[in-house]
Amino acid sequence: MGRIRLQDVAERAGVSIKTVSNVINGKGRATDETRDRVQKAVIDLQYRPNVAAQHLRQGRSGIVAVALPELTQPYFAELASEMVRAAKTRGLTVLLAQTDGSPEAERAASDGIDLPLMDGLVLSPLTLTADDLRHRLDPTPLVLLGEHVGDDSPFPHVAIDNRAAARDATAHLLSLGRRRVAAIGAKDPAGGVVPAETAELRFEGYRTALAAAGHPLRPELVASVGDFHRSDGAAAMHALLDLPEPPDAVFCFNDLLALGALRTLRDRGLRVPEDVVVVGIDDVEEGRYATPSLSTVAPDKRSIAETALELLLRHRTDPDAPPRHAVAEHHLVVRESTGGTPRP
Amino acid sequence: MGRIRLQDVAERAGVSIKTVSNVINGKGRATDETRDRVQKAVIDLQYRPNVAAQHLRQGRSGIVAVALPELTQPYFAELASEMVRAAKTRGLTVLLAQTDGSPEAERAASDGIDLPLMDGLVLSPLTLTADDLRHRLDPTPLVLLGEHVGDDSPFPHVAIDNRAAARDATAHLLSLGRRRVAAIGAKDPAGGVVPAETAELRFEGYRTALAAAGHPLRPELVASVGDFHRSDGAAAMHALLDLPEPPDAVFCFNDLLALGALRTLRDRGLRVPEDVVVVGIDDVEEGRYATPSLSTVAPDKRSIAETALELLLRHRTDPDAPPRHAVAEHHLVVRESTGGTPRP
Repeated sequence: MGRIRLQDVAERAGVSIKTVSNVINGKGRATDETRDRVQKAVIDLQYRPNVAAQHLRQGRSGIVAVALPELTQPYFAELASEMVRAAKTRGLTVLLAQTDGSPEAERAASDGIDLPLMDGLVLSPLTLTADDLRHRLDPTPLVLLGEHVGDDSPFPHVAIDNRAAARDATAHLLSLGRRRVAAIGAKDPAGGVVPAETAELRFEGYRTALAAAGHPLRPELVASVGDFHRSDGAAAMHALLDLPEPPDAVFCFNDLLALGALRTLRDRGLRVPEDVVVVGIDDVEEGRYATPSLSTVAPDKRSIAETALELLLRHRTDPDAPPRHAVAEHHLVVRESTGGTPRP
Repeated sequence: MGRIRLQDVAERAGVSIKTVSNVINGKGRATDETRDRVQKAVIDLQYRPNVAAQHLRQGRSGIVAVALPELTQPYFAELASEMVRAAKTRGLTVLLAQTDGSPEAERAASDGIDLPLMDGLVLSPLTLTADDLRHRLDPTPLVLLGEHVGDDSPFPHVAIDNRAAARDATAHLLSLGRRRVAAIGAKDPAGGVVPAETAELRFEGYRTALAAAGHPLRPELVASVGDFHRSDGAAAMHALLDLPEPPDAVFCFNDLLALGALRTLRDRGLRVPEDVVVVGIDDVEEGRYATPSLSTVAPDKRSIAETALELLLRHRTDPDAPPRHAVAEHHLVVRESTGGTPRP
């Protein structure tokens, strides 16, 4: 069985090769009748318009793969949408893979397994380090998201300054005169899908802010979690409220934890911000509509997406340039949960 | 330039073909040193472990593409995660594409453009109808999600009974003795990313429930929206509260609209459920943690995902079977926004 070519399809459909190409590539204006004839020929001949051979010939596929831990985490869903948008303006298509933070899935993505032929991969690893990824098999350009990498990483990466973000959040709570500032999101030694480095850096920022304000670190006010989900924040908040001296402020390592904590505070009859103030990190849209609306540290997601794509494309044109480590901006957003306005 | 084969990589790396294959496919236990040697050979020879040729030979790629409108809609993010889970238990990988509901992107997905060689496609179209898709070019098995198809669709499809879901939600509000029951989510004639059929079917269910209870349909209580987002729900709720006789109950066509409406009710100083009761559709996790927690109609997302994959796989084994149209279950969940318990 010889390989089916565009010309075979054109002959069978009784149209020009250009018309077949246009129809197949979604360009030009073909009538439904023409589309039908091309379609019939494509199916009769079992021609695969998306065969990777075409991409191989062209040397590029126009596809960028983005592998993220969990799309039900709104932060990652919002980041994914920004990646789709940023890619579209560059004529690229994004295909998303969910790794669930498993090391096998992260390695498979970095090795290009079960991924299409792609122009580049953006990976947000939870468990693998840049060092683990040194041994990847796939030479496709790779950009890492998040802090799961050192500055000596062989791959370009984009992250916010997590230490500074956490310090800013904690300092904000202290500036309100609160003295028993809890932290929810430290890493549970039992494991779970928690980005260890993120948790460590944010904890460091929390500790730094306390020290800078001359406050002791109270271990009982540091709540570890198994995951960065709403349910983890809700449970941790219950435990903190059961302390003999409960906190009057809570810094949550992400917005989902904070949204869970807000719900527990309401269930326990406490008022936010009067009794307890709460701040998160991520600036997910949900926090803007929550009751009370959630104060947060907003990473510049658009810039993270744009930069990641720029770094990928740069790698294509200049593969031997030293990897760049970009830091995206962040800023504090004060909403009702720390006494601000509903939706600034 | 001849094609690079596994054997070339094995020879260059000085290991067996089986070892190369294991390393490339993430199987077996290779030492880091072996991985390094294989990696070096792969890169030196520019061997692409993910070439689709391999997939073509095997007749299957193990990849299922799932094309959804928007991943920042938590309903779609949760559905995507269920698809990933369901695929994994069947040894398949899911790659996600976001169409933004654009007809071009939906057609490109159904034609297999910019998608890898895949075993099947699950598409949730917002704008294209099953009829539009008759002219698709790609013979890859296709399953449609949602109600954007008729029962005479040439493709299998999975949806909930949207009319019944909306009827159940509205009847619930009426059962609480409310008489001015508004609806948020009717289609804005100006367009926007609104699934037209969904909006129409849910509107029909609303109207049917009112009629069954002997209540007139008050056009001023039907709010159209440009999109199914929080901001649309918030704006529509403001408009409804500006009426001379505002509603005492609101049925929102999805949870995001309802979460926006809840926020507006709070901004306007109204109590939920005392002054106004609110119900949505989707059962997104956010609604369980919202204040007040949101009553909703829960579609069985797991079953939708499982059924979609089953229909895809059935198509592979029996491509000539008539397309099946599956209806997934739904059920009412009564939470605080209509006087229920916080999180049943």
